[in-house]
Amino acid sequence: MKLQLALDRITLEQALELARSTAEYVDIIEVGTSLIKDYGMESVRVIKDEFPDHLILADIKTMDEGEYEFRAAFQAGADIATVMAAAPIDTVAICYEVAEELGKQVMIDLLGVGSEKLRSLEPFRDAWLCVHAPVDQKEKNLVEHVSQFQKEFPDFQYVAVAGGVRLEDVQQFKSQAPGIIIVGSAITKKEKPEQAAESFYAALERKE
Amino acid sequence: MKLQLALDRITLEQALELARSTAEYVDIIEVGTSLIKDYGMESVRVIKDEFPDHLILADIKTMDEGEYEFRAAFQAGADIATVMAAAPIDTVAICYEVAEELGKQVMIDLLGVGSEKLRSLEPFRDAWLCVHAPVDQKEKNLVEHVSQFQKEFPDFQYVAVAGGVRLEDVQQFKSQAPGIIIVGSAITKKEKPEQAAESFYAALERKE
Repeated sequence: MKLQLALDRITLEQALELARSTAEYVDIIEVGTSLIKDYGMESVRVIKDEFPDHLILADIKTMDEGEYEFRAAFQAGADIATVMAAAPIDTVAICYEVAEELGKQVMIDLLGVGSEKLRSLEPFRDAWLCVHAPVDQKEKNLVEHVSQFQKEFPDFQYVAVAGGVRLEDVQQFKSQAPGIIIVGSAITKKEKPEQAAESFYAALERKE
Repeated sequence: MKLQLALDRITLEQALELARSTAEYVDIIEVGTSLIKDYGMESVRVIKDEFPDHLILADIKTMDEGEYEFRAAFQAGADIATVMAAAPIDTVAICYEVAEELGKQVMIDLLGVGSEKLRSLEPFRDAWLCVHAPVDQKEKNLVEHVSQFQKEFPDFQYVAVAGGVRLEDVQQFKSQAPGIIIVGSAITKKEKPEQAAESFYAALERKE
């Protein structure tokens, strides 16, 4: 299980500071949707420049214009970019093709879609699929969501989980073993983000 | 029917030039998703600064974090901001509340959703609903989409249409009378964008 740090709803300077203090415990640095919408692709460029050896995920949440958006994100330095499962299937396909062409990765964000749409994603089983509990939804049980997803779609092997992941959830995720655990405020909003990141790192028993 | 000019997949300088040459024929200037993802909210700020008397739409396509994103867009000068119908209903509700609180407007983009989700949008019938044929989808019949939508959902009164609208479509839209016609490349990719905008203006029989 890799640890992805989500940097969201903060300034670019705060994002850089958080990334600096936690980088040694983090595999993937996520340039959050809010950073991209606030600062544009410059946010991806700045973070990749400072962390060239980390995987950088640009959470662009593409809904349309897949080729343009994916090329822009990868050109800015992203290693992984996100497309919404809710987007037209043609958009998902184009994003997948652009990533393949450039030797980059796609994460398909499952926010807001049901089983029917999920089944249509079968051709993209090499992509990361992100089981995502939204920030705006108060009631959520992410561990259960992941279990349901894995039971219904055993063929999708590359699973990421996001949405209010807490340190105490990690133990439960171990039996599900998603490839990526995405953590935001449980690190970034802590008084000592470095310690929080180290705790996740330890809990995930990360080894290179 | 109001005319909305969509500025997308170009540089901010090109966007400004296009807006300058067509502004007198345009009711709403759309800061397209690609401009926002490329340049951040600065793109909205710059365009509102130069066109303070136009309605400015920020096509932020919110999928989550509705409060943060909508406040950011309105603070940057947007009069209208977009949320995806595919977003969790809690997100749509938060966007609607923020717009109401600030005396601004919401456009709900129907890209990628079916009838069931559309029915859940009934509480937001004061919002603009955008019937949207995606750029990435080759086969489309927008006029037919709009007819189907209006037949199935007669209670939604504020309808916008987007996705490859051409000048020759305007006549057909007249019987449907959507409140906003969104035009991108049929103006921006023409050799003489000003003339193209004027032609749409004339076809729409715009009167103040």
